[in-house]
Amino acid sequence: MKDVAARAGVGLKTVSRVVNGEPGVTPDTERRVQEAITALGFRRNDSARMLRKGRTASIGLILEDLADPFYAPLARAVEEVAREHGALLINGSSAEDPERERELALAFCARRVDGLVVIPAGADHRYLEPEMAAGVATVFVDRPAGLIAADAVLSDGFGGAREGVAHLIAHGHRRIGFIGDQPHIHTAVERLRGYRAAMAAAGLPVDESWVSLGGTGAERVRAEAERMLGGERPVTALFTGNNRVTVTVIRVLAGLPRRVALVGFDDLELADLLSPAITVVAQDPARLGRTAARLLFRRLGGAERVPRRVELPTQLIVRGSGELPP
Amino acid sequence: MKDVAARAGVGLKTVSRVVNGEPGVTPDTERRVQEAITALGFRRNDSARMLRKGRTASIGLILEDLADPFYAPLARAVEEVAREHGALLINGSSAEDPERERELALAFCARRVDGLVVIPAGADHRYLEPEMAAGVATVFVDRPAGLIAADAVLSDGFGGAREGVAHLIAHGHRRIGFIGDQPHIHTAVERLRGYRAAMAAAGLPVDESWVSLGGTGAERVRAEAERMLGGERPVTALFTGNNRVTVTVIRVLAGLPRRVALVGFDDLELADLLSPAITVVAQDPARLGRTAARLLFRRLGGAERVPRRVELPTQLIVRGSGELPP
Repeated sequence: MKDVAARAGVGLKTVSRVVNGEPGVTPDTERRVQEAITALGFRRNDSARMLRKGRTASIGLILEDLADPFYAPLARAVEEVAREHGALLINGSSAEDPERERELALAFCARRVDGLVVIPAGADHRYLEPEMAAGVATVFVDRPAGLIAADAVLSDGFGGAREGVAHLIAHGHRRIGFIGDQPHIHTAVERLRGYRAAMAAAGLPVDESWVSLGGTGAERVRAEAERMLGGERPVTALFTGNNRVTVTVIRVLAGLPRRVALVGFDDLELADLLSPAITVVAQDPARLGRTAARLLFRRLGGAERVPRRVELPTQLIVRGSGELPP
Repeated sequence: MKDVAARAGVGLKTVSRVVNGEPGVTPDTERRVQEAITALGFRRNDSARMLRKGRTASIGLILEDLADPFYAPLARAVEEVAREHGALLINGSSAEDPERERELALAFCARRVDGLVVIPAGADHRYLEPEMAAGVATVFVDRPAGLIAADAVLSDGFGGAREGVAHLIAHGHRRIGFIGDQPHIHTAVERLRGYRAAMAAAGLPVDESWVSLGGTGAERVRAEAERMLGGERPVTALFTGNNRVTVTVIRVLAGLPRRVALVGFDDLELADLLSPAITVVAQDPARLGRTAARLLFRRLGGAERVPRRVELPTQLIVRGSGELPP
């Protein structure tokens, strides 16, 4: 660890923070420490510990959809940390089905995974308590566990959405629509809470017809966007609750004769090349995955006792669509 | 299977073709059969066979990068087929490192996977022969195996690239650049072969300064694109060999005062909303994954003896960038 600190030009405490997924490290510093770790081939001791057990360690990852461009880098980051610890990755997609999440988690435990990283679909995780008591380390990521005490690594959805909506308000918007994911999903609710907080802070009333939570399928999102943009008092701006919603709303707006302001939660690969380029509140999915996986291995190593909640900041990226006037 | 055939409105033979990953089924028909399978909860018998073994079956998937938008839907499709057969998915990213591919494959075999789906990084797969002889079914996808006889499910990279380049030629281009992936990668070589075939068929000479194979990192691709677009006799059009290359070239072209024609191999999520919209030669990564996984389970079920090679067609999607004049 001394070598890593020297190479990255930081103190030992900073290296320890990065390795253990603790907050208080800037993304740039984290990247430098990460590069030093890779360059030096640094591995934690529990890799050796697992080898002593005489079999390959493995961890299970349950996410919503492996094909979603938000979850794919998260999964890859979990895999990279697992690899640093000599562990394989078993994963599965819950497709937002709590029963499928449970089936996968229990099947992974039956396969003797050492730990689980879970993006939960369900709201009740008591079914995992016996497994956790038996030593399966479990970290929830993106959304917290329901009805049990467990580690969680989250993005600041509330603060990010509040900042994005305040940005639209600062550019003169008063009637702002919010289209988000289903209301049982923690992140959807947190982002909506951020929307309401920004409106309230500016003293703006919210017409409930401007708020829509539901599936992120293109058909529903398109219908809701068209409804909010039509009628006698249309919204002049939209805030979209995740990348799937944003993509559909971009398509709706591209077909309109007038330009409507848009800020989207989550970045998109070609967002900067569209006209207007899309202003977003970006999460760092790779950092979410890396932080969760590091916390998992720290817990496996016995270094953690009390469940922890880590919240990562979001970043407003100003590109054009969020600065259009009403 | 009769119920599936009736619901999908097709014959039994067609259902069998879809389930077994055989060619000769249109994407639309495949989709209908797939929907009927999902609606009816149809599962193959080997799921029961695996349950009789008293443990959860699992298959291993080795790909280049779980975070790449081409591989993510492929991985999800493999997972869905595995699920239909009651099997879990273990996966890992080779990061184009043959040694890492080998490590992952052997670690998966040590964990007693029933089969492997491999997007190979290396060119010599003799290390897998003992595992295959011991009964680990293995299907290669996207790229064929090296030095062993094994199943392979590929896209028609040669035909797709030939069609894309012929499209540029048909729009008046004579000096066309090709920027592709590293020369040891099968798909990079096949697509370059398609480029050369289209140029030869039109009687056009190829200046070797128009051809560049190498890493798909943004820095190299940007330098090569700028080199081909500069000088006294710049190319008037570019053909890009995969989605990573295309994204960088789009950024280079966006910074130019003149418009340069572009056809890219692989589709991109927002390609239709750019200006100009991007003409692409699209693969269907989900279908590649589905076909490979079905072939794997067919082989596990003992229904296959001789190694098979399945080649899926590509589709030219005309959107604007490939129709710009020289």
